[in-house]
Amino acid sequence: MTSIKKLQISSLKKQELIDITNQLKHIVKEESIKQGFLLVYNPHTTAAITINEGADPDVKKDILNTLLALVPNKGSYLHAEGNSDAHIKSSILGSSEMVIIEDNELILGTWQHVFFFEGDGPRNRTIYVKIIKEL
Amino acid sequence: MTSIKKLQISSLKKQELIDITNQLKHIVKEESIKQGFLLVYNPHTTAAITINEGADPDVKKDILNTLLALVPNKGSYLHAEGNSDAHIKSSILGSSEMVIIEDNELILGTWQHVFFFEGDGPRNRTIYVKIIKEL
Amino acid sequence: MTSIKKLQISSLKKQELIDITNQLKHIVKEESIKQGFLLVYNPHTTAAITINEGADPDVKKDILNTLLALVPNKGSYLHAEGNSDAHIKSSILGSSEMVIIEDNELILGTWQHVFFFEGDGPRNRTIYVKIIKEL
Repeated sequence: MTSIKKLQISSLKKQELIDITNQLKHIVKEESIKQGFLLVYNPHTTAAITINEGADPDVKKDILNTLLALVPNKGSYLHAEGNSDAHIKSSILGSSEMVIIEDNELILGTWQHVFFFEGDGPRNRTIYVKIIKEL
Repeated sequence: MTSIKKLQISSLKKQELIDITNQLKHIVKEESIKQGFLLVYNPHTTAAITINEGADPDVKKDILNTLLALVPNKGSYLHAEGNSDAHIKSSILGSSEMVIIEDNELILGTWQHVFFFEGDGPRNRTIYVKIIKEL
Repeated sequence: MTSIKKLQISSLKKQELIDITNQLKHIVKEESIKQGFLLVYNPHTTAAITINEGADPDVKKDILNTLLALVPNKGSYLHAEGNSDAHIKSSILGSSEMVIIEDNELILGTWQHVFFFEGDGPRNRTIYVKIIKEL
């Protein structure tokens, strides 16, 4: 049994993709998990977790710009807090990602990085990481 | 080993988000699961599972209205059953959600509720819940 | 403990949904998994995994056409490789799907098939399958 790990993430903008891959790799090393799965879970309703390319920062910008074009910040939304766009993007991207662990390593594709999506920043957030350990 | 639990869900409209959080919490209590994960799985190709804000019902409406604006009910679709929009929304929102269980409680964020998305209602549906129990 | 299985997938077009359900069922049979979960994981940043209807091939076409209308191949993207649309669709559809296994069978809905989404083909790809075996 492994307990929940908490990651603190600070954003600087309204919309942002923040690379959390190194923090996740650190948890896998620290816990000495040989085999299993890692769940990254976002408990905030205006944020999300997504996996995408981490090499060229333009990919992040293209994802954020396209999300903004599809679901604009200002629109005929009913929710009074002014962050409906972020709620919608949270459901489109999804609340979590599951990644395989083998031989004490996170098994990501060559270009894959794990990102925290902030839709209603700037904010300080806490997300959860929990591991399924295999015997 | 825990068996599959089935939840019955009835919708009243073509498109609807139905809060299933209490049913999920009830399953966790009933099964006395101390630690683990809960998978909510939707087996229908015009429905989905998503996690979002449950406090203000306007958030649900904004999500549904925006999905409808992006993927209209009527369009130049090829599929003859007239529910292509619901199939597409099913893939955008996703077929399942995984939630952490700790100390016999479902670990959701303060504002997070789990929703069943119906895209081709009104209908009676059955969805699956299965728990990964940790020792 | 079950090791990672690798599936080889070849696409013929720029955008394609390729049914991988039979390969997944074969893995479950071959491994004699009684109870548990199967994770299908895509390690490519211009591809994805999604679950949808497999009976009428028009559903696949409607999904692909709508994704193309929402996120066009050509646009004012910054990323120089010309495949930003595929990166964005990868995050919209998601990098993996988790499916329940019971009595040595994959528990899918009547109309559900599991698809590999290629967004930047034609290509030869490898995806990962890993099983959580329950005692």
